[in-house]
Amino acid sequence: MIYITRETHFCAAHKLWNEKWSKEKNFEVFGPCANENWHGHNFDMRVTVKGKPDPKTGFVINFKDLKQLVNEEIIYKVDHKNLNIDVPFLEGKLTSCETLVVEFWNILAPKILKMTDGQVALHCIKLTETKNNYAEYYGE
Amino acid sequence: MIYITRETHFCAAHKLWNEKWSKEKNFEVFGPCANENWHGHNFDMRVTVKGKPDPKTGFVINFKDLKQLVNEEIIYKVDHKNLNIDVPFLEGKLTSCETLVVEFWNILAPKILKMTDGQVALHCIKLTETKNNYAEYYGE
Amino acid sequence: MIYITRETHFCAAHKLWNEKWSKEKNFEVFGPCANENWHGHNFDMRVTVKGKPDPKTGFVINFKDLKQLVNEEIIYKVDHKNLNIDVPFLEGKLTSCETLVVEFWNILAPKILKMTDGQVALHCIKLTETKNNYAEYYGE
Amino acid sequence: MIYITRETHFCAAHKLWNEKWSKEKNFEVFGPCANENWHGHNFDMRVTVKGKPDPKTGFVINFKDLKQLVNEEIIYKVDHKNLNIDVPFLEGKLTSCETLVVEFWNILAPKILKMTDGQVALHCIKLTETKNNYAEYYGE
Amino acid sequence: MIYITRETHFCAAHKLWNEKWSKEKNFEVFGPCANENWHGHNFDMRVTVKGKPDPKTGFVINFKDLKQLVNEEIIYKVDHKNLNIDVPFLEGKLTSCETLVVEFWNILAPKILKMTDGQVALHCIKLTETKNNYAEYYGE
Amino acid sequence: MIYITRETHFCAAHKLWNEKWSKEKNFEVFGPCANENWHGHNFDMRVTVKGKPDPKTGFVINFKDLKQLVNEEIIYKVDHKNLNIDVPFLEGKLTSCETLVVEFWNILAPKILKMTDGQVALHCIKLTETKNNYAEYYGE
Repeated sequence: MIYITRETHFCAAHKLWNEKWSKEKNFEVFGPCANENWHGHNFDMRVTVKGKPDPKTGFVINFKDLKQLVNEEIIYKVDHKNLNIDVPFLEGKLTSCETLVVEFWNILAPKILKMTDGQVALHCIKLTETKNNYAEYYGE
Repeated sequence: MIYITRETHFCAAHKLWNEKWSKEKNFEVFGPCANENWHGHNFDMRVTVKGKPDPKTGFVINFKDLKQLVNEEIIYKVDHKNLNIDVPFLEGKLTSCETLVVEFWNILAPKILKMTDGQVALHCIKLTETKNNYAEYYGE
Repeated sequence: MIYITRETHFCAAHKLWNEKWSKEKNFEVFGPCANENWHGHNFDMRVTVKGKPDPKTGFVINFKDLKQLVNEEIIYKVDHKNLNIDVPFLEGKLTSCETLVVEFWNILAPKILKMTDGQVALHCIKLTETKNNYAEYYGE
Repeated sequence: MIYITRETHFCAAHKLWNEKWSKEKNFEVFGPCANENWHGHNFDMRVTVKGKPDPKTGFVINFKDLKQLVNEEIIYKVDHKNLNIDVPFLEGKLTSCETLVVEFWNILAPKILKMTDGQVALHCIKLTETKNNYAEYYGE
Repeated sequence: MIYITRETHFCAAHKLWNEKWSKEKNFEVFGPCANENWHGHNFDMRVTVKGKPDPKTGFVINFKDLKQLVNEEIIYKVDHKNLNIDVPFLEGKLTSCETLVVEFWNILAPKILKMTDGQVALHCIKLTETKNNYAEYYGE
Repeated sequence: MIYITRETHFCAAHKLWNEKWSKEKNFEVFGPCANENWHGHNFDMRVTVKGKPDPKTGFVINFKDLKQLVNEEIIYKVDHKNLNIDVPFLEGKLTSCETLVVEFWNILAPKILKMTDGQVALHCIKLTETKNNYAEYYGE
């Protein structure tokens, strides 16, 4: 079993805000991340898959195909967008790093299995929000 | 003459948008940076000053003082904000990297001179918007 | 289960030295790291915790709280210090990367459990000593 | 159990090419990586070993020894070389990242065990080919 | 005057070799960089231009246009290539970092002036060959 | 004229301390950098030289020679040392970044000129003390 990682990037606006709470409560919990007019980040996303190399190519998965899948399913939908407003699959959800890695996983995991006839599985989504903070999800 | 640089960081939302243009024209020129609901970045700002070291301290400027000045005059006003809406000194201005470095310069340059009795001058503001793009301004 | 990491930094002096050995033996084993007048590093520490996101906040743990805990329990005690002399919890211990990650773990692991009523557990301490060397500890 | 990582670097030329395929098929699968006159990379290799610290040194393994082993067994054989032509242990093999991590593992794993009398085991080889792509192997 | 930089990347094979010298002399001067079967690098290229921001866009130059120019004139010709064999404008030249920055300058400088009606000038080409080595050229 | 840079690294202990001042005054000015038992850093030093490429080699200077000079004159004297105690050329001096770049310049500048028969000159010493702070000196 070999693990292959592709790093991609997107720039997006968001805010952390619980609609059921008062403005005061939101600022108390989320601090400056609750700024009403949004703030934003350069997000780095690492998608790791696992499988056995194909003896004909030496590849677990062709990076070209993995890159295209991640771009079409995630990057083109979140890059240069507002995560709270512009992204259908995030509608009504909190846009914390923790939520994002789970939502990205739920989209990519079945598609990677299908694209490879079950030979390659998604292993981890890692999302870095700032130089000092990141979240990882392994599907369970 | 020695050049001293302090790097700081801020996260902000913005969009590139010329109010005098149609929506179509804005998208044609600014591409996805014109997304109406904003996008955002982790900005890295490097402030470089120049001067002679004080023989008593070995310092051109005490980093503690430079850090405090940059934080109070710039970082606290732009971090976790929307650059187009929340920042008084950017009101009515385009929020391109080029505009930001000039506006930051205009605020910091006189204050650094005053704080050091003219012994230390601002030399360069460098602002990095993404891994691959940055702007620098030397005051003229 | 989601894994959340916060990176922090500290600058410290240390030397590698076994009091039971001769000077020659220390230099033979530890090389330049045994320099008697100390040397030092910029250490990067990554603290990874694991848990389920709280549906009200989207957070496994509030980064603000994790940051405060790590700063109070570790960073303020080791930053700009001599690890062999100034740090009570390292007294009489070798200050290798391996020792440090275990000592940091022993301090942080119970406090994270207590702070979160057992909902969030420390998963890994990773300590980077130079660009090319690091140690990781998972508690067992 | 503590995990210790040493990062090393090498610069090499290679191409991805299956001798059993036509030129067209090679370009279709490998894209520009099949350029007949080669291309090349700065590879970063991270070797992670696991073991218990020796109470006399605080070390799982002396970095000096691990560095020397990795240099002699791998780096001196691949650095400033053509991976498809100049490296005996890669003869007749595809030079994808996936293949390289397995071949490096097969060389290093038994030697690390032997060098440490079974006290320290190789845990992971991670090979980074470009800023955005890497492969990891854990031996099974 | 504001300075704008765009960083791009390419992977290429090359060797340092003076055709007029013996094999021994080439190895004596160029060391392992003279490996006859090539070696390679991930090159990072930073292109810096200078000009005044257009008041309608806030841009010195539209990054989209600069990126397209650099890709078409340089990157597509050197990426995943052998610099000594595959690149017409490097034919018969040494492929040191120093030579590359001058050749890249000679191609880009007139095209940037022309593309901007003389409003924007190339300021610097910086080429990074390894983590520790880079060359810069300012056109004179 | 082409500018060539070599980055090197060293790990050292130091403290900022003015012998003419009281303990209180030292802490007031230097803050935690005045810790009496030292602290330390991983310093990154970039040495930039300028000259014309030799048409026979394509080199402004052979990196091998520049590396050897920097190692012998600076790195071997400061790496894994205490800058306040162990380094003869820093005796009695403050060990701020500003002081270090000037002292390193004074050693390297004449030697680079001599080594190259006046064909290559030192252009800049850049010393990075932490991720966020650095000093540069251009010789005047």
